[in-house]
Parts: sequence; C-alpha cells; structure tokens
Amino acid sequence: MGIHAYFQSLTDLERIIRCPGKFKFQEHSVAEHSWKVVQYAKTLADIEESHGIAVDWKKLYEITSSHDYGEIFIGDIKTPVKHYSLELRSMLQQVEEGMVAHFIDEHIPEAFKPIFRKQLREGKDDSVEGQILEVADKMDQIYEAFAELQKGNSEQEFIVMYRHALIKIKGIRLHCVDYFLQHILPDLVSEGARSPIDIERITREALAA
Amino acid sequence: MGIHAYFQSLTDLERIIRCPGKFKFQEHSVAEHSWKVVQYAKTLADIEESHGIAVDWKKLYEITSSHDYGEIFIGDIKTPVKHYSLELRSMLQQVEEGMVAHFIDEHIPEAFKPIFRKQLREGKDDSVEGQILEVADKMDQIYEAFAELQKGNSEQEFIVMYRHALIKIKGIRLHCVDYFLQHILPDLVSEGARSPIDIERITREALAA
Amino acid sequence: MGIHAYFQSLTDLERIIRCPGKFKFQEHSVAEHSWKVVQYAKTLADIEESHGIAVDWKKLYEITSSHDYGEIFIGDIKTPVKHYSLELRSMLQQVEEGMVAHFIDEHIPEAFKPIFRKQLREGKDDSVEGQILEVADKMDQIYEAFAELQKGNSEQEFIVMYRHALIKIKGIRLHCVDYFLQHILPDLVSEGARSPIDIERITREALAA
Amino acid sequence: MGIHAYFQSLTDLERIIRCPGKFKFQEHSVAEHSWKVVQYAKTLADIEESHGIAVDWKKLYEITSSHDYGEIFIGDIKTPVKHYSLELRSMLQQVEEGMVAHFIDEHIPEAFKPIFRKQLREGKDDSVEGQILEVADKMDQIYEAFAELQKGNSEQEFIVMYRHALIKIKGIRLHCVDYFLQHILPDLVSEGARSPIDIERITREALAA
Amino acid sequence: MGIHAYFQSLTDLERIIRCPGKFKFQEHSVAEHSWKVVQYAKTLADIEESHGIAVDWKKLYEITSSHDYGEIFIGDIKTPVKHYSLELRSMLQQVEEGMVAHFIDEHIPEAFKPIFRKQLREGKDDSVEGQILEVADKMDQIYEAFAELQKGNSEQEFIVMYRHALIKIKGIRLHCVDYFLQHILPDLVSEGARSPIDIERITREALAA
Amino acid sequence: MGIHAYFQSLTDLERIIRCPGKFKFQEHSVAEHSWKVVQYAKTLADIEESHGIAVDWKKLYEITSSHDYGEIFIGDIKTPVKHYSLELRSMLQQVEEGMVAHFIDEHIPEAFKPIFRKQLREGKDDSVEGQILEVADKMDQIYEAFAELQKGNSEQEFIVMYRHALIKIKGIRLHCVDYFLQHILPDLVSEGARSPIDIERITREALAA
Repeated sequence: MGIHAYFQSLTDLERIIRCPGKFKFQEHSVAEHSWKVVQYAKTLADIEESHGIAVDWKKLYEITSSHDYGEIFIGDIKTPVKHYSLELRSMLQQVEEGMVAHFIDEHIPEAFKPIFRKQLREGKDDSVEGQILEVADKMDQIYEAFAELQKGNSEQEFIVMYRHALIKIKGIRLHCVDYFLQHILPDLVSEGARSPIDIERITREALAA
Repeated sequence: MGIHAYFQSLTDLERIIRCPGKFKFQEHSVAEHSWKVVQYAKTLADIEESHGIAVDWKKLYEITSSHDYGEIFIGDIKTPVKHYSLELRSMLQQVEEGMVAHFIDEHIPEAFKPIFRKQLREGKDDSVEGQILEVADKMDQIYEAFAELQKGNSEQEFIVMYRHALIKIKGIRLHCVDYFLQHILPDLVSEGARSPIDIERITREALAA
Repeated sequence: MGIHAYFQSLTDLERIIRCPGKFKFQEHSVAEHSWKVVQYAKTLADIEESHGIAVDWKKLYEITSSHDYGEIFIGDIKTPVKHYSLELRSMLQQVEEGMVAHFIDEHIPEAFKPIFRKQLREGKDDSVEGQILEVADKMDQIYEAFAELQKGNSEQEFIVMYRHALIKIKGIRLHCVDYFLQHILPDLVSEGARSPIDIERITREALAA
Repeated sequence: MGIHAYFQSLTDLERIIRCPGKFKFQEHSVAEHSWKVVQYAKTLADIEESHGIAVDWKKLYEITSSHDYGEIFIGDIKTPVKHYSLELRSMLQQVEEGMVAHFIDEHIPEAFKPIFRKQLREGKDDSVEGQILEVADKMDQIYEAFAELQKGNSEQEFIVMYRHALIKIKGIRLHCVDYFLQHILPDLVSEGARSPIDIERITREALAA
Repeated sequence: MGIHAYFQSLTDLERIIRCPGKFKFQEHSVAEHSWKVVQYAKTLADIEESHGIAVDWKKLYEITSSHDYGEIFIGDIKTPVKHYSLELRSMLQQVEEGMVAHFIDEHIPEAFKPIFRKQLREGKDDSVEGQILEVADKMDQIYEAFAELQKGNSEQEFIVMYRHALIKIKGIRLHCVDYFLQHILPDLVSEGARSPIDIERITREALAA
Repeated sequence: MGIHAYFQSLTDLERIIRCPGKFKFQEHSVAEHSWKVVQYAKTLADIEESHGIAVDWKKLYEITSSHDYGEIFIGDIKTPVKHYSLELRSMLQQVEEGMVAHFIDEHIPEAFKPIFRKQLREGKDDSVEGQILEVADKMDQIYEAFAELQKGNSEQEFIVMYRHALIKIKGIRLHCVDYFLQHILPDLVSEGARSPIDIERITREALAA
C-alpha cells in the first residue's frame, strides 16, 4: 500500500470520540476537533501577521491539520493518564511516535517519507507556528467545555478542562493570545450567563491563577 | 459580537450530515469532510511542489479549510438540485454568497472583514490552489462513496457520486491527478474486490467516459 | 418503476433531520414531523366541523400526509434561506415543483399521474383544508421549539421559530385557532415554568405582536 | 390537562423503536411507521375508489393515523408474545384498551371524548377502511423487512416478518391487494436480486403458502 | 442449537433500551443495567457478610446476572402496564416464564437444562440473595432517574421512578439497606443541589412515605 | 465521597466504546461487554463444576464483574499499543493499577478498602477462576468479531481479533474450553456460511496455529 493507506485511515478519526466516558450533551470526533483547530489557527496566524510577525503557512498547515493523527494508534487517552507521571507521559509519547514511524515505514512510498515524517511529528515546538497550534488546540477545549457548562453539565471534568486550557493559553506570549483574551473570551463568557454553573467566576479565577 | 460568532458557528457544521436522506452505513459531518479535504489538499500540493509548481500555501490553507462554510446557511443542498438548472444554480450561489456577506457585515470586526471576505469566497478558481481544492473535494466524494459501495449499499446515488467525482478529477490537468490515478485509485479499487457491486467495472467505465 | 418508487422513497424522509446544524436535545425526522401534522390536522378539522364548517376529509388527508414530500429533493433548506428574498423563495419553489413533476413523469403510472399531481401539490391554499394544514404545520414548530426552550436550549433559532409560528397561527381565522390559543397554548406554556428561558414572556410578546 | 396532553404525547412514539432487540441496519420509530402507513393507505384507497368502491375518508384518516397510539402505553410488544396464546393476546388487548380509555377519561375534555374514543379504537375491522389499514400496516412490515434482507441481515426474524405479512395481505379480498401483488411486489423483489438472501424464493413460497 | 443460542442472544439486550418512549438525556440498554445490578449486588452482599449474614454467592451470581433475560421475549414492558391490574401482571409473568421455558426446551442441551431453569427463574424471592437483587435493581432505577432529574428532565416518570424505587428499598430489612440510606443516598442527593428540580424534597417525602 | 463515587462512575463505562476508530456495524460499550463476560463465565464455571472442579464463586463474581473497571481511567487503549513493547505494556499496567489504587485511597471508606483492592485487582491469574475469566473475555471478542465478519465488515482488525482470541482460548487447559471448541464454536461458525468472508477457513487456521 501507499498513500492510500494514510488517506483511508483518516476516517478512523471520525470514530474516535473526544473525552470518552464522561457524559456530554454533544459529542465531538477527533476529526471534527482537528478541523476546528485548523480554522482557529488560521485566524490566529492572521492576527500575528497583522502585527508584523512572519508566519510559515506551509508549516502551520502541516502541523495543525495532522496534530492528532497519532490518536489513530493510541486513542484519546484520558488527560489525567497523560499527566499521571512524567515517566509515563514520555513513555506514551515514545509509543505514539514509534507507531507513527512504523506506519510511515510500512505504508508511505520512499519519496514521501521525509514529508510524512515532518507532517506527523509533534508540532507544538517553540516556533510561532508551534505556539499557535498550542493556542488553537486549547481554544477548542475551551469551546467544547464551555458548551457543556452552558447547558449545565455537572461533570467536574469540564470545569477542569476549561480552567486548564485557559491557564495554558494565557501563559503564551503571542499577539493573538491578547486578542483572544480581550475580544473573544468576553463574548464567550457573556453567553454563559444563564447557566446554573458560574462560568464567569471560573473564568476570572483561571485568569488570576 | 465579533470573531467569536464565527468560531462558535463552526460546531454547527458538525451537525450537518452529508448526503441527507439516502441510507448510508457511515455518516459524515460537513466538518469531518472539511478536515479530510484539508489533509488531501496538503499532500496533493506536496506532489505539485515536487514537480516544481509553486504553491501559495496561505491561500490553499484559507480556501480548503473554509470551502464548505456556506453550508451553515443553506445546508447540504442535494447535488441534483444544484444542477437542476443553471439558473437555479447561480441563484443558489448568489444566496449563499449573500448570506456569507451578511454574516461578515454583521459579526466580523472592521479590521478582519477583508480577510474573512477572501477566506469565505468560493475557492474553486483556475489557480493551482483552486484546482487542488476541486480535486481534494472530489477525492472525498470518492472515498465516501467507495466505502458505501464496498459494504454493498444499493443506493444508486453512491454509484453516481463515485462516477461523477472520478470524471471531474480526471479532467483536471495537475501532476497530483496523475499520481492519484496511477497510485492511489488502484489501491482503493483493489480493496473493493469482495463487494457485491462491481466497483472495478464502474471505475473503468468512468475513466473511459 | 411504478408506485413502488414512491413508496420506497418515503423512508428517505426518516433520514432528513429537521433544523439541521443547530444543537438540539431531541432530533425529529421529516417523517415524524409529517405524522404529527397529520394528527394535529385531524383534531383541528374535528373542531371546525363541530362549528358547522364542512371539511373535505379526502383533500385534508392528501395534503397533510404529503406536505413535505418535496424535501426528498431539496432537503430541509433552512428557513432563513427560504425567506432571504422573494425571488429566491419563488425560485426554490419552482425547483421543488419541477423535481416533483419530473419524479411523477418518470415513475408514476399513467392512471395515477393526476392523483399524484394533486397529492404532491403545495397544499397551503386558502381553503379550510389548506389553512388547517398551515396551522398544524406551525403547531409542530411550536411543540418542537418549546421542547428545546423548556430544556434550556440557548440557540436563538428556537425562540425565533416559536415566535414566528405563533404569530403565523394567530393570523389565521379559524375556530380551531381560537381553541388552540385558549385551551392548548396555556397548558403548554404552564409546563415551561421551570425553564431558565422565560417562555411565558416570549409567548405574551408574540401574541401581542 | 386537555388535548395538549394528547398532542404532547405523540413525540413519545418517536422514541419507541420497532422490532426492539434484533439487530437492524436501519431503525424505524413507531411515529415514522405510522406516517408511512398513512401514505400507503391513501393510495390503496385511491385504487379501491378507482374500482367504484366507496371509501369513508374521514374514518380512514382517523384509524390509520392513530392505529399504533396504544403502543405509548404498552411499547412495541414483540409479535411472538402477542401470538403466544389467544388468552394472553386478548388480555394484552384489554389492557391496551383499558389504558387508552383511562387516558381519555383523565385528559380529554368532555366534548371531545366521543371523538377520541372512536379515533383510538382498534381500527382493523371488516370494513373497507379497516381492511385497507391492515394491508397498509403489513405493507410497511414488508418494506422494513425487505430493506434488512436486501442488506444481508441474517436475523431470522426479518424473514418471518416478511413472510407473515405477505401471507396476511394475500388473504385479503381488495382490489388494491391485487394491484400490490401484480405491480408493486415484483418491482420490490427485483431490487433484492443482489442480496445474499434469496428474497425471490422466500416471496414465491409465501405466495404459494 | 445449543448454549450458543443463549450466548448469542445476549447481545439482543444491548438493543433493548430501558424506559422506552420517554425523553431522556442518557439511554441505558438492559445489558448495561444488568451489569450495574451485578456490581451493586456484589457490594451489598459484602455489607451483609460483614454483619455476619451468610451469602450464597453462586446463587447471587446466577440471579443477578440473568434477572432481566426474560425481556428478550417481552421487551421492557412499561411499568404502568405491569401494575395496571394484578390479573394482567400475573398473566405477563406467566407468558415470560412460558417463553423462557420454551427457549430452554428448544435450545439448551439436556445436561444443562436444570441449570438454566434455575438461572432464568424469577430471582426476587425472600432469601437474602433475592432481597439483595431487589435492592440492587431498585438502586439502579434511583441512579438512572437521579441522573435525569439532575439535568432538569421534566418527564414526570422519572420522579415517579425515583420515588417508587426509594420506597421499595426502605421497606426491605437488610443491613445493606441501612448502609445505602445512611451513607450512599446522602452523597447522591447532595450532588443534585443545582438541579431545577428539588431532589432533596422528593427524597425526604419518599423516605417519610 | 464514599462508595457512591464508585457506583456513580459505573455509568462512565456505558460511554466507552470498544475497539474505537474502526468501522463496525454494531457498537458495544465496555459495560455491555462486562455483562456478557459475567454471563459466559457463569456457564463456563458450571461446566468446570460438572467435571468435579471446585469453583470459588465469590472470587469469580468479583473478578468477572469488575475486570475492565480500570478502563475508566485509561480508556480502551488499542490492543496493538498494549502489545507494542513489553516495557510499555507493563508501564501501562502500572499506571492503571496506580490510578485504581489512587481512586480507592481517595473515595472508598476505610472498612471497604481491602474489599475493593481485591475486587479491582487484575483478575487473570492462574487459578481456575482467573482462567475462566480469560476464556470468557476472549469468548466475547470472538462473538463481537464474528458478528462483524458475518456482515462482511472488511476491517482487517476483526479477523485479527477473532484469530488471536481463538488461539488464546485453545491454549488454556480447562474442561469448559473443550466444551467451547466442540459444542459452541461449530454452531457459531456454521452461522457464518453466507458471509463474503471465509470464516470457516479463518477458524480452521487459527485452531491449527
């Protein structure tokens, strides 16, 4: 097999549901999440450019569109596990990378191997593009968790997810983060006013953390 | 509201199912389809670059990621309707564009309006990027229809979809089309050998059409 | 093919979900909606008869049971699109009618063509039966929207749908409309008292509009 | 409460799935089934009329649209149970009727009680309308079972359902039954030719039974 | 066929949804319910043992794991029907037992017949094990109903289910019932504090009933 | 919190779908799988007893009902990952055990801690009960994979799963394994005769492996 094996496998990510186990009013597949990350990242990069920052669009395209492909091999392993111990975390990352490397070795034609190796690497490095990916990924956690909190979902996990994602974002030094905190987040929070859960307070506390 | 209105609306495309009405073994949301188009297009563009063709990655990123956003306003109108008459088709396109324009006017901040206007335009022009988008979009129809035919879905619509998409692709003059026809399509077809539907014959006839 | 083509196509309307895109706690197929409209219309017609109004039951049967069959061809096009411009609206109606006519020409045996042409016409004319169909159709929008508002669905669309349907109904001069407004609507509204959305106020304002 | 209680309860029949327990490629709610029965019955009655038979359209409307309402109280009790013993069968019918009567007593206003009692009675009597309902109800079993057999569903139950429904229909002396057997059934059967199950043989044997 | 017929039929209980018809935020299959009952019963029996009560673990295993198998034949008949009249109730039980007996006669090999007859008997007798099964079964109704009430489900049925189950449990003289009322129920109720439904009051009233 | 935390968490296993990512005609939750394992194990133990083998029913009850509880913390990690390297495998098991231990420490009252530690341990040891659990667990993989193969599912994974489970079972020295291979498996295989996949050959080869 060749690249067909890769293209055909994409549909598997339509069948891996994010945040497995927990009750949610609305499910999201990893494929759907990935698409939203692509969209957020595009606008975040536009904001950076408007502040004179150079963006490598090809790299951004590559790392955002493929950033969760490894979940085909290890599923959406629950975040608490990922962080249970540094040892396990690095071990899991090794496995995921090992399985991706194995997949490329076996299925991708010689000429494309370097391209797929770059494309399927962990993209969240310190470059502008890597940081934008991190912000976009966390933004989707905020949107997903918010939609549950807004409907009154009492699973503690969504408060934790919302909080952690917000704290992560505000720690990143990018113009688009400023924009998000000043212009997008307030719009979001104001829509949660009718929820039985005090989203405004959770937000305020996370921003002060 | 501002860009938040756009970001939040993206999740609506997780709830619009492609090819409504017809029985299918597997459903795909417009969001999932969009993500797969982004992925195909990336590799197709890599193939073009490897033949020395210049690719505008920023443009490609913009048009592939947003190419079906207008379906938020008009839904996945059935293909037969779209082609029922040229008059209606252009009328529908006018409406879609009108509603997108209206959305931008109402929700997108002044500074971002030009960006969103470009991003949400119909992307399938004659440029390399526009043509790559067309190929990637049709490739997903082929993958979706194939998966149904392979499982023995007897709805005529999937044969028509597979056939039309293949005929459309083979009419486009790109290096990546040659690659698709020579290296990817044969792998796909060979997997359909056990289907009660003669996919090999349908493919051969479409290529000869 | 003959009438079988029509009978078999009915199941497609089990797979077209109303109000596509928007989040809802409960989905309804067009087939399910159609059945409820048939049921409401029957009781509304009983009310008319009890006031001495003659009802053509055969006609009522025909137009209520088939009133959304055309959606097989054009899907559940979003209401905002339908009303975007008078020009488009009439265009869309032309297409739907054209495709229904085409279906009858191709599939229905000669002897039944006149019957199917009558049955699949747009039924909402000025006759008692046409007006009852309009009331019944809008009543189901009220029930569907109410069930979402009652559960705290924050999508603006359901408030708009509830409001528009109520305004439409109250403008129709039928005995059954009086009965609905005096005896059915108050029961409905009283059940929504615990909702975070003020359904009572929305109702009052729509009735005063 | 009044008629609202009845109207609101209709949506419960969207949540009762026919043939519970057995694997099926496609699920049908009782509401969806009811709508299709309404549609078949209309055309069957047209056929009777075309042969000079008088049809009471109001009665037909009443009994077809409401014929499975009692399932709200007893669910879709599996057919084998219904026929397990004559004693149980009549007992179950008593209960269903008792619960419907109880519902009418409690919820329906005095003026409408006679109407609802007629409407919610068991409609399958010896009148033309009652027989048309029987044919239409069994026709939907044939369409539902056929769609499963066509896709290769190996549950024995769908062969039994298809067979029993066909035997029941052919025993009814109506012009529309002749039409169904001569014009509709052959079209249906011819579509099942590619199925791994020999639908043509099952049909032939049922017709000869 | 032999025991395979029994094993294969188990999957049918994954497709029978509890409490059919009523709107619920979360569906539970009979198989899932059965597994939770097995789990509750195990801990309840541990509590009995810790108070010096002898538990026949083999019997407990048998009756808890199979206690709803009969629903394969009669579905999840709505509780109101079950209690509509003593006559019907005993009639229904006769049918269920008759069909289970018939299944065993037809499918289970001679050597296993006595085992299956014991295993598939109605297990809720006056023994410790039978009473534990009754408590565990009702506990799952409490958990299922609570999860709906907590999310604001306005269906009256879940209040009734919660209330009846609680009243049933508190009437049973077991150490584990004391433990449940003193240690488990308060934890549960405290989690419902944010619900629009006053779960604390409903609980208090049921305990006082 | 106390035991309530454990009981309430059980419902999370209704929302973890086995074999995530791969297309399947029928989904199974971990809760449903667990219940079927409980049922198989009971009959397998009956067979052992009938050959004079002593069974500790309490232990069997404990380990079969809880055997997949750890998936609440780590999800249904894909089997290929589990076996990717011995190092990772033991690492994953450490994490799962660590998280289970952490859960018990935090939520389970002192008096019950020893019970829960025993109950939630990895149960597949060399005892009769541990071996029965292994057979029952693999039997469900066979039933699940078979049902997909029978319907013509072309995912390679289900052939691998069927094959591996069969090889694992036949290597276990229990009377119930003999019974399974001689009496149950042949019944199963004979039902797959109409499948486009040659299940009989796959079975024969696995038994000869």
